[in-house]
Amino acid sequence: MQRTVFYISDGTGITVETLGHSLITQFSNISFNTITLPYINQPDKAKQVVETINQHVEQDGQKPIILATLADHAIRAIIAESQGILFEFFSIFLDPLANALNCKFTHTVGKMHSIANYKHYKHRMAAIHFALACDDGLNTQQYHKADLILMGASRTGKTPTCLYLAMQFGIHAANYPLIPTELPRVGLPQALKPWQDKLFGITIDPHRLHQIRTERRANSSYASLTTCLNDIQSIEHLYQTYHIHYLDTSKRSIEEISTIILDKMAISRKLQ
Amino acid sequence: MQRTVFYISDGTGITVETLGHSLITQFSNISFNTITLPYINQPDKAKQVVETINQHVEQDGQKPIILATLADHAIRAIIAESQGILFEFFSIFLDPLANALNCKFTHTVGKMHSIANYKHYKHRMAAIHFALACDDGLNTQQYHKADLILMGASRTGKTPTCLYLAMQFGIHAANYPLIPTELPRVGLPQALKPWQDKLFGITIDPHRLHQIRTERRANSSYASLTTCLNDIQSIEHLYQTYHIHYLDTSKRSIEEISTIILDKMAISRKLQ
Repeated sequence: MQRTVFYISDGTGITVETLGHSLITQFSNISFNTITLPYINQPDKAKQVVETINQHVEQDGQKPIILATLADHAIRAIIAESQGILFEFFSIFLDPLANALNCKFTHTVGKMHSIANYKHYKHRMAAIHFALACDDGLNTQQYHKADLILMGASRTGKTPTCLYLAMQFGIHAANYPLIPTELPRVGLPQALKPWQDKLFGITIDPHRLHQIRTERRANSSYASLTTCLNDIQSIEHLYQTYHIHYLDTSKRSIEEISTIILDKMAISRKLQ
Repeated sequence: MQRTVFYISDGTGITVETLGHSLITQFSNISFNTITLPYINQPDKAKQVVETINQHVEQDGQKPIILATLADHAIRAIIAESQGILFEFFSIFLDPLANALNCKFTHTVGKMHSIANYKHYKHRMAAIHFALACDDGLNTQQYHKADLILMGASRTGKTPTCLYLAMQFGIHAANYPLIPTELPRVGLPQALKPWQDKLFGITIDPHRLHQIRTERRANSSYASLTTCLNDIQSIEHLYQTYHIHYLDTSKRSIEEISTIILDKMAISRKLQ
């Protein structure tokens, strides 16, 4: 079964895409064809969108679903005249929310993803640049500024996780590669010792690590299952010895890894 | 006026945070104290959350707002017994959506931000690694793989934009720093010439650029307003000469810059 879904917004479309996606993934029997149309902020654009939707009614032989965030009443009214089935988030939520808050709302288009203030913007940029500067064991002398230091074997998703934490939550996250063969001899690397409260360990299913490394260097000793098994064993032993929180990232997305880490480390998060 | 808002989820909490934030920013008279509680996926955890909410009723002297995405009915029922004012997105949307789709939903917790499949996961990771490998003019020999090449002066947000495009949409975006003093003489840099269809230009208000550069190297010739004015003039002249789409990023967030670029370049987007 196939169904067309339009994500329509007068802003970036990120909010409607996020909520819409979380709704449609609850219908696993249907294959969705999603079309995102952002910046529909002029009546002319909105009228064109209505035409596109109506063409799909004919083409698909059924009404498309329209999920929309449209703060502007005039644009909303135009889209409402299409033949699709419209769910417009602001009209559904804002009135009951205004009642609950006992306060009027302001109808500001695209406020969510605009630059709220320069200080806030700088904080987020600083976090992104920190993640880049402190990637892969670089610049350990900056660890006093870190909210969090991720450690783990190579190719286990440390870099993307640090970048996501910076981008989404403004967290200063560094990452440090563990060299498993050294661990039994040296224990916790010197550079990490002063920062034990900030450490979080990444681990992974050795078979998954073997698969990932094989794609990079097939048939190498680095990629062999034996190496991967030994590496993960040494690493998990280190985490246990030093009572470091850790997480198996094998079947987790960057979003899951990032939010589980913040939860386990009790770091409070603020959407950027 | 101050108000406590809880974002509660049985998954990562990213969806509820995103939608919630876009709703509360419509009430500009109220100062919100937001608390995100993710992974509320056990009755015990849910009961603890209810206690926390009820404590806030007393402490704040008014009922907190609860915005929630809870796919699990049992958890939802527990949270519903708190004294806060609950808006639970799935219960509001899933029934009408199921009607519109003429299909039942599956009540899967945390499906949105899980790894949908390995191929998809690899594509996203590849995009992130591409952005890092092709940052700041590196590895121009890989431009045949790029969906997009961002160009502009230094410190105008090219790197974070490329990383966001990779993370959020799986777009392969490279970035290339323009050296404004060279432009009048050499025109479009040699490395970019074969890829004119993929180019997108970044520009910025010279006064804003002056402010950003001054924070890095105060009183330098690089940061002086005269240099910034000349730099931006040369760069915009280049864009106009070669008919390159461009955008002033001065007052825009990374989300806005990224989505406007995709819109102007007619690159279709898929939420990762």
